[in-house]
Amino acid sequence: MAVTFTVTGTSESPTKLTVGARDFTFVVDEPESLGGTDHGPNPVEYVLASLAGCINVVVHMVAKERGVEIRGLKVTVQGSLDPSRLMALPTENRAGFESIELLAEVDSDADNDEVDEILRIAETRCPVADNLLSPTPVTLRRAALVAV
Amino acid sequence: MAVTFTVTGTSESPTKLTVGARDFTFVVDEPESLGGTDHGPNPVEYVLASLAGCINVVVHMVAKERGVEIRGLKVTVQGSLDPSRLMALPTENRAGFESIELLAEVDSDADNDEVDEILRIAETRCPVADNLLSPTPVTLRRAALVAV
Repeated sequence: MAVTFTVTGTSESPTKLTVGARDFTFVVDEPESLGGTDHGPNPVEYVLASLAGCINVVVHMVAKERGVEIRGLKVTVQGSLDPSRLMALPTENRAGFESIELLAEVDSDADNDEVDEILRIAETRCPVADNLLSPTPVTLRRAALVAV
Repeated sequence: MAVTFTVTGTSESPTKLTVGARDFTFVVDEPESLGGTDHGPNPVEYVLASLAGCINVVVHMVAKERGVEIRGLKVTVQGSLDPSRLMALPTENRAGFESIELLAEVDSDADNDEVDEILRIAETRCPVADNLLSPTPVTLRRAALVAV
């Protein structure tokens, strides 16, 4: 069983991309401090958000399977990166986040050990976490121009 | 030099998360076909969008360095995943995208070889591509509940 997801992006400027995903349209940009026009979150903020959104889904799914009620969930997701490689400056550091940390405030009557176990299982089943934790082939190819 | 990015997410339902990133607020949800309320793109669509947004930035950056004008750029990003692991069904497949393919329509006077070289370099410098291509540690920890 495979489910395919597709998004399309149209460049509005060197930093701003308008993205379509099904019926949704949203903007990716860079803050002015990074040379952008700040019309939307930037690419790496969307990475953190996608991970947060995925963890929300999977934590609730795992909790339900285990008969645990989750009354509330807040997640804070943080990562740091060195932009040197992006900017073609000499560096030994990778281009992306060195690591990503999620802190989850879970409001539940379950004890801490049970909540920790739910979080542990959730991380192993979350598609976004998997794509970050283990290598994911990414191919970027030139397409023929389509007249519009 | 390290730049830190942070997003916060508040669960509105088992599938819907409201995310804050600096001054921006947006919604992650699942389509009804995946058990959600379809109030926004889903987590893995945001992954594809973040990659598209990053490639937009880096392609323009690399082109500018090489004296190439990009008049237009459209990217289509696609990935397929098997939701079996997410749903705790028996599977040998990974939880996330098996691979991610980007097709870039580049409107430029540069010849195809030059455009291909720009795309090749862009992929090596794109932080989001790096976080997918190479393992990125992800830690998920329980935080103390904060009264609100």
